[in-house]
Amino acid sequence: MFSFAITARAGRARTGVFETPHGPVETPLFMPVGTLGSVKGISPQELREIGSQIVLGNTYHLLLRPGPERVRALGGLHRFAAYDGPWLTDSGGFQVMSLGHMRRISEEGVVFQSHINGDLIELSPEKSVAAQEALGADIIMAFDECPPYPAAPEYLEESIERTLRWLERCLEAKTRPDQALFAIAQGGVDLKLRRLSAQATVSFDTPGFAIGGLAVGEPKEAMYPAVELSTRLLPEGKPRYLMGVGHPEDLVASVALGVDMFDCVYPTRTGRFGYALVPEGRLNLKLTRHLDDPTPIDPECDCYACRHFSRAYLAHLVRADEMLGLRMLSLHNLRYLHRLMEQARAAIREGCYGEFAREFARRRFGGEVPGWFRRALEEGGHWA
Amino acid sequence: MFSFAITARAGRARTGVFETPHGPVETPLFMPVGTLGSVKGISPQELREIGSQIVLGNTYHLLLRPGPERVRALGGLHRFAAYDGPWLTDSGGFQVMSLGHMRRISEEGVVFQSHINGDLIELSPEKSVAAQEALGADIIMAFDECPPYPAAPEYLEESIERTLRWLERCLEAKTRPDQALFAIAQGGVDLKLRRLSAQATVSFDTPGFAIGGLAVGEPKEAMYPAVELSTRLLPEGKPRYLMGVGHPEDLVASVALGVDMFDCVYPTRTGRFGYALVPEGRLNLKLTRHLDDPTPIDPECDCYACRHFSRAYLAHLVRADEMLGLRMLSLHNLRYLHRLMEQARAAIREGCYGEFAREFARRRFGGEVPGWFRRALEEGGHWA
Repeated sequence: MFSFAITARAGRARTGVFETPHGPVETPLFMPVGTLGSVKGISPQELREIGSQIVLGNTYHLLLRPGPERVRALGGLHRFAAYDGPWLTDSGGFQVMSLGHMRRISEEGVVFQSHINGDLIELSPEKSVAAQEALGADIIMAFDECPPYPAAPEYLEESIERTLRWLERCLEAKTRPDQALFAIAQGGVDLKLRRLSAQATVSFDTPGFAIGGLAVGEPKEAMYPAVELSTRLLPEGKPRYLMGVGHPEDLVASVALGVDMFDCVYPTRTGRFGYALVPEGRLNLKLTRHLDDPTPIDPECDCYACRHFSRAYLAHLVRADEMLGLRMLSLHNLRYLHRLMEQARAAIREGCYGEFAREFARRRFGGEVPGWFRRALEEGGHWA
Repeated sequence: MFSFAITARAGRARTGVFETPHGPVETPLFMPVGTLGSVKGISPQELREIGSQIVLGNTYHLLLRPGPERVRALGGLHRFAAYDGPWLTDSGGFQVMSLGHMRRISEEGVVFQSHINGDLIELSPEKSVAAQEALGADIIMAFDECPPYPAAPEYLEESIERTLRWLERCLEAKTRPDQALFAIAQGGVDLKLRRLSAQATVSFDTPGFAIGGLAVGEPKEAMYPAVELSTRLLPEGKPRYLMGVGHPEDLVASVALGVDMFDCVYPTRTGRFGYALVPEGRLNLKLTRHLDDPTPIDPECDCYACRHFSRAYLAHLVRADEMLGLRMLSLHNLRYLHRLMEQARAAIREGCYGEFAREFARRRFGGEVPGWFRRALEEGGHWA
């Protein structure tokens, strides 16, 4: 039910098809984040139109509102949110750390205060799996701890071992055969611990594996060796999901190293802040100079915003805090990342991922390609 | 260029076609308000899909941001906002009164402070027409004063006379033959003054006439005699536009009396506040009881929200202040009013407007049809 077939390779990059009960998805792919069961401002029809393949829901948020049992009674996320393509839910672990107040971590799980109303809530491997079974996503995530950066090696090690015990409990608690549980390898940017975590995690042989605990504030120079090591240690035949990663340059560099899946609030959040992703980086539409510009955000883009609206109009809407502006920038930014992954898949199929990534870098970075990006391409076999 | 052909009548209600340079529109109709050049949260494609025929832009708001000359340079509202159907702009007069600070009215015009940045701005008949010519709408409105309710008869009279002198100056200032300027009859709820204003206004023979100064806080019992008198005095062969009116029951009662056009922020604003229009009134989606309801807002409605989402999901989105919820309620509420006017047009064509309006009242008011509604139907010849 959850087979993964790699259809082409270029260096360490690969493209493939992952089967889910709600249809196949092509990797590498970017997943829009539908925090509370909606990708902010975007309709299910628009998600289809811009090429979204999997939508991510946050168990932490859905646990607080509207509650997993309510979602189950209304047909699970697919019917509740009227998006019948594949869904993925995270375990809640990450947001307990970032949003919960007064959290207390023990062997049993985590107790925290809701950021909405202060209620004391317990989350454990069993409770997370039960919530994710009620929500009904196609892919569910193991309940893990995502330690902050920096973290002391002793704490990291302790956390990794607890996360492994929690993984075992998640797999024991899981009952639905129509959901794939992905394990998450941790280890921060400590390569010894990352190796230890990846190797132990892989032994559980889940249908996919995630790389967690990165992009939490560490420099790129520390993050990429951890990505590189992880994709070497995670099995070839399973999808690899780099959690919470989201900037275009990170997608291109990580695909070079063999990552298959990504998610991030970046495209929608930066859109709501008035920024539009373009090959050269991002446009700040709050700047006065855009107010008279009749050109679209990106003449190469095929999204509704780029086909209909000028930078001038969108800049006006952003400045006036008009909902349509925020909606259109979110739509465009998601389409930008989906198109980037479509281009990556095509380049892998045509055996020219290196050319694609170097052309991306030329436009994104101009003359100065950063060392971490170049090294990722080199280690991926894309920089001859 | 701006012909109005009445195609059917039922009592005093009529349905017809008004020609504009951007296509014909069928009356009676409701115009969504695109305050700053966008109907909050709604795309031009969606406006087409839900049956919007004319979009209204607010000259006051567009004067402050992004500025009429900027809109002109970007192709006028039609191209700037990527909606190439008919547009109407108001004159700015109404919002100067409701939003401007420290306004000072003189024979010349109005000086006010921008509510955005405190800049001192002058608006006069000539400046309003120039701004509206730059914005480029198909229908532009005379610069008038909309006195508050209640207002002293002496003040009302003085204001009516000034508004008539301003109308004359607007018509002299107007240069574009591809724009129709509608005059506005005032007079508050004082029937003597309303008659005086309507008769004097009609003599200017503009391609359409508006009824201004109503729905500003007066009771319905005072408003409807003024509507009834106005539609009797305004010419049969020109469209009649009741400004700022917007509640479903007001549309049905006013069409009965021969009104052809309406505009109001009500459907989008009440949507953003979490309310959905239904035949029985409106649903407050913030109420807990909707959180488990799998039915759509209105099973009779064909809008995207009603075809895809449950009350439960929309109630969840509203409660979590999710943009998609506000967007979907705005979309549904606009569709509700457009559908109501489609049904009104069909009923007039079929000669059964009275049945339509009474059936509307039965669902909207239950057993207790208010006197003002019944009298409007009686005076319109729809309550035998």
